[in-house]
Amino acid sequence: MAETELQPREDEDAVREEGEEFDEDNRLKPAFVDSVREALEAEDDSRAYELVEPLHPADIADLLELLSETERRELAAAISDLMTSEVIAELNDYVRESMVEALPAAAVAEIAEQLDTDDAVQLIEDLDDEDQKAILAEMDADDRAIIESALSYPEETAGRLMQRELVAVPENMTVGDLIDYLRDNDDMTTEFWEVFIVDHRHHPIGTCQLSWILRCPRHIPLLDVMKRDQTLIPVDMDQEEVALRFQKYALISAAVVDESGRLVGQLTVDDIVHIIQEEAGEDALLMSGAGEGDINEPLRDAYSARVRWLVANLGTAVVASAIIAMFGAAIEQLVALAVLMPIVASIGGNAGTQTMAVTVRAIAMNQLTRSNTRRLVLRELKVAMMNGATIAVLIGIATALIFTPQLGGVIAAAMVINIIVSGMAGVLVPVVFDRLDQDPAVASSVFVTMITDSMGFFAFLGLAVATGLVG
Amino acid sequence: MAETELQPREDEDAVREEGEEFDEDNRLKPAFVDSVREALEAEDDSRAYELVEPLHPADIADLLELLSETERRELAAAISDLMTSEVIAELNDYVRESMVEALPAAAVAEIAEQLDTDDAVQLIEDLDDEDQKAILAEMDADDRAIIESALSYPEETAGRLMQRELVAVPENMTVGDLIDYLRDNDDMTTEFWEVFIVDHRHHPIGTCQLSWILRCPRHIPLLDVMKRDQTLIPVDMDQEEVALRFQKYALISAAVVDESGRLVGQLTVDDIVHIIQEEAGEDALLMSGAGEGDINEPLRDAYSARVRWLVANLGTAVVASAIIAMFGAAIEQLVALAVLMPIVASIGGNAGTQTMAVTVRAIAMNQLTRSNTRRLVLRELKVAMMNGATIAVLIGIATALIFTPQLGGVIAAAMVINIIVSGMAGVLVPVVFDRLDQDPAVASSVFVTMITDSMGFFAFLGLAVATGLVG
Repeated sequence: MAETELQPREDEDAVREEGEEFDEDNRLKPAFVDSVREALEAEDDSRAYELVEPLHPADIADLLELLSETERRELAAAISDLMTSEVIAELNDYVRESMVEALPAAAVAEIAEQLDTDDAVQLIEDLDDEDQKAILAEMDADDRAIIESALSYPEETAGRLMQRELVAVPENMTVGDLIDYLRDNDDMTTEFWEVFIVDHRHHPIGTCQLSWILRCPRHIPLLDVMKRDQTLIPVDMDQEEVALRFQKYALISAAVVDESGRLVGQLTVDDIVHIIQEEAGEDALLMSGAGEGDINEPLRDAYSARVRWLVANLGTAVVASAIIAMFGAAIEQLVALAVLMPIVASIGGNAGTQTMAVTVRAIAMNQLTRSNTRRLVLRELKVAMMNGATIAVLIGIATALIFTPQLGGVIAAAMVINIIVSGMAGVLVPVVFDRLDQDPAVASSVFVTMITDSMGFFAFLGLAVATGLVG
Repeated sequence: MAETELQPREDEDAVREEGEEFDEDNRLKPAFVDSVREALEAEDDSRAYELVEPLHPADIADLLELLSETERRELAAAISDLMTSEVIAELNDYVRESMVEALPAAAVAEIAEQLDTDDAVQLIEDLDDEDQKAILAEMDADDRAIIESALSYPEETAGRLMQRELVAVPENMTVGDLIDYLRDNDDMTTEFWEVFIVDHRHHPIGTCQLSWILRCPRHIPLLDVMKRDQTLIPVDMDQEEVALRFQKYALISAAVVDESGRLVGQLTVDDIVHIIQEEAGEDALLMSGAGEGDINEPLRDAYSARVRWLVANLGTAVVASAIIAMFGAAIEQLVALAVLMPIVASIGGNAGTQTMAVTVRAIAMNQLTRSNTRRLVLRELKVAMMNGATIAVLIGIATALIFTPQLGGVIAAAMVINIIVSGMAGVLVPVVFDRLDQDPAVASSVFVTMITDSMGFFAFLGLAVATGLVG
């Protein structure tokens, strides 16, 4: 699909050194962005072009993301021939989607035809069915077939991510045959880091890193150079699992095989790093209930993701309130209880969140299995006891001094109980959700919060009554 | 340093397909781990060896991590010749450190000499100065010099991460010259994905992907194949920045240069994916105050990281308590205030955490700069108003029905105020810390929590008094 050149020397502009457009973190300087904005405002397209022209495609994409929606459209029009497929591929999903929706189907089809399969799929997979059909109708039959086949795999699987372009050769070649074959085929991809050796059924039987080929004399058979053992990625494997394999086995590229074991595509690590980043970063967002958490996400999506979670937490807060209500008489009698009770709940909540964050991450990294869960629970119990003891002493002494020693004792005991309960909830809730095949990052927070809040109030107020502090 | 073979066919065992040792997530099955445990318990070393022998080094590392410290040592002894440098390199930092500390210096030196520079550095960088010196003293002078030079760079910089082994050639070579050079040098690394072209001062002037070399006829000069523009990594660049460059520019490898611009090493993406994963995943841990959050971290480190944060939050909780104390008389008069006030604080806290998670991530991804901060603040203000309105209606009606309409009005108004304040705090606190060059993930939580807690109580109780609900 992508036409590639034999000598790719000029096909891409990378930033050699930090130019004056960049700050020390390699972000575009506000002053630079402002001058682009000014050029757009003055409708000085050639000035805008001149400013943007030296940038790497990834930086042009960054620039577009920094601009408002109107400015984006103006800039895209002003620099239309710099709006290459690389720029489109580098854009944030939401920004790309909104820009693509504004283009006619024929223009999108033209861009898609220039992209590698995986980027072309990404370009159109989030569009409405109708828009997708319109764009596919404008494409070459061959390209259309490839895209349709990719779209037939579920979202976020290897089949969606893979490139069809790869180098696969039969097992009877020598190193010299392979080099000649590569030199003779002008329309082949240049984006490959290993060569796959296949049998007559097109099943992969081995793989050669390019460095191995370059280091060997021409007469050596590929069978003697290749490594037989390789990590094969099933076409329906989830992208998170793919990312973990790449990381665990330090892969640069990997063969993707269909159900019958035929080589159907390859995945390269430069496409996977985005997924590693995404999957590793999303837990913080999921645990806070912030949904996708992308600053380019449309307002209504951000609202609907977040409000759902706030409503769920309203439910847990009401449970906590109901517990407080049970102790209304005690609070009326001793208002210091109302003053102090949020401290117990708040610290318990923090302790629970800490343990939950650690557990969710260990699960995501495949570090926590049935084989070591007991060890982790014991470890967290010990940490919770140490934390509980420390905080209990601090708050107990302060309360004893400001209020009464008896109240100090009650809050200290409640604190120990709540930190231990929270710590255990922080481990056990995600573990249980994981065993039920639910994403622990999404589901755990609401339950852990409910437990830590309710238990904080219950332990403190309950102990106050039970010890006869209030009657 | 690492001796590599011309034909690496046999130098590594990768898992071709999921064997029976693995579950559907490619984790070692508990039953498999148990059978290893049983073999160790029965002191049946040959059985343990037989079980472990088919595993990939990365899986042997996983297995060691799943075992307890005693079991680890027993297994390492039982499978000593499977404990290759690859296994050591794949081990979790804490597990490696504890295992290495148990070995004599000469044994560690021997392992280090087999590793690539970057792995050897990782092996010894976390040890005590004394242990480091003892190990270095046991090494070859050449290897020692390389390690000492790497250790001279600050931790978590490119200088620590880079491999010294790379392929750099002068600019006057042709493709054929390069291939001959690669074939003639047996002791060269096979771990390279591009060739760096350097001038007489050893400054990089261009780079060639191996696929480009394989696709060109022998007589073509490298100057015509290479790409001049490339991303050069300064030796003192922070690893987080390095990871962002690799991701942004889709790099497979990159040249590392010293202050004078000389090529001193290379970084390859398989070493960077761990950092991308680490840096992206650590924000959830940092925001919760869980420190490193590694389940293998020693107990005292986990305790000290977490308790510090709990004590800080004890401080913020005390501020919130002080605000409640100001309204002691009002609570005595109307105990429903004490029942409902945690709801306002809790939902505000959640709303603040959501916004903070989104902002911290946008900052980490270099998506948020001065150029679009205003836009994000406005966006978050809108989301907060929508969320505030929704939750206010729900809690307002429920409170009006259960308690009084007036109390319903007060809690609804307090909820809107608190969600908006929390949303703004969630954006502005991390942005301010970022501009002060503090890590927003670490510093923001305590401040956002303080603002959301205090403001929740103050808005609710203050409004109750101000509206004359209580006197």
